[in-house]
Amino acid sequence: MKRKEVEVLEDILGSNIRAAAELKRRLLDRGVLAVNLMSSPGAGKTTLLERLAERLSPRYRLAVIEGDIETERDAERIRAKGIPAWQIQTGGACHLEAKMIGRLFPQLPAELDFLFIENVGNLVCPAGYDLGESLRCLLLSTPEGDDKPKKYPKAFRTAQCLILSKTDLLGLLPFDPEQAKKEALEVNPHLEIFLVSPLTGAGLEDFIAYLLRQRQKLTGRHA
Amino acid sequence: MKRKEVEVLEDILGSNIRAAAELKRRLLDRGVLAVNLMSSPGAGKTTLLERLAERLSPRYRLAVIEGDIETERDAERIRAKGIPAWQIQTGGACHLEAKMIGRLFPQLPAELDFLFIENVGNLVCPAGYDLGESLRCLLLSTPEGDDKPKKYPKAFRTAQCLILSKTDLLGLLPFDPEQAKKEALEVNPHLEIFLVSPLTGAGLEDFIAYLLRQRQKLTGRHA
Repeated sequence: MKRKEVEVLEDILGSNIRAAAELKRRLLDRGVLAVNLMSSPGAGKTTLLERLAERLSPRYRLAVIEGDIETERDAERIRAKGIPAWQIQTGGACHLEAKMIGRLFPQLPAELDFLFIENVGNLVCPAGYDLGESLRCLLLSTPEGDDKPKKYPKAFRTAQCLILSKTDLLGLLPFDPEQAKKEALEVNPHLEIFLVSPLTGAGLEDFIAYLLRQRQKLTGRHA
Repeated sequence: MKRKEVEVLEDILGSNIRAAAELKRRLLDRGVLAVNLMSSPGAGKTTLLERLAERLSPRYRLAVIEGDIETERDAERIRAKGIPAWQIQTGGACHLEAKMIGRLFPQLPAELDFLFIENVGNLVCPAGYDLGESLRCLLLSTPEGDDKPKKYPKAFRTAQCLILSKTDLLGLLPFDPEQAKKEALEVNPHLEIFLVSPLTGAGLEDFIAYLLRQRQKLTGRHA
């Protein structure tokens, strides 16, 4: 990279790190656990959020920020579940940035337990941008193959939790969940791993229990 | 974007456009049809190349350039089929660039009919970078969902051909191929669309006939 390119990249990353740290503090102060969901396109992020809305609401108060290159589709799906949702259209950019989330902060409900941020479908660029989340969850769907952790290591290395998604297709595909787990843990031994079918909801209980534990641990608040 | 950011981006894109135009001319002069394969991670690009190797070689001479963030895995799979293959590890970058391909040009076999370039698995960034290809083929796999063309329009807008991949899973998924085709054609009415199962090889004949026609048309050479 040329010097001017390096300078510009450092400016962008540095200003994102500062914005994210500030946002994380403000969210935790309010008792909000922010979760950044990352994956390839079509790995089941929006469907997972629909299932979480059904299971967690109204006992817990949820809000969702959706990131996409174009269309309002995902936010509409979440609003149809009765959850407040905002759509960020990046208009070409391959990831969300902290300042995009920060601009929506004043619009968030005063009483909120979970803020889910669905990143642009992409297993590469989003990994470089903290959004002020306290928890980063990566989805790897079974049709994508069990060889992905070492091919896209940064996404796996920077996440705290991994959802092996679309388990309803296990047995129909050349995907070995044990191999995927093993390889993911070689890249990041601290990953908490869950097997979930966003379509049927199978496996969701363990993931929800994890979210509730993390919220209590990180915000210090009970239900 | 700041002025310095815009300048840097224009430098990068401008130098890529020039490198790609030069490379395209050199490849076509040699009678090589270069095909840039783009998709999300795990949509079946490498498996499609394995099937093409089995069907096209040795009658046609193939070479493959593989792009990944890390690992040599995909090139190894192609070499196991007896096809010369080079792996480019981008080390973090979310797409290939023309100059990366240009550096490998001197190593390509003197007699070559097809050069397949498998881009980094990503439905966003690769669409902005011409690699000197004469044909850009996008794979959309059935598990990703039929709503992707309008969410990731640039990839669909800049491709000449679309492969609806993993058709062996049709009927098991909430994916309507007619809806996917309709939406893809709304984004780009010139797309040639093929339904293919890279796993079983079903539907490959039509795609191969298309590749042979395109090679004849663009290079002026027969088999």
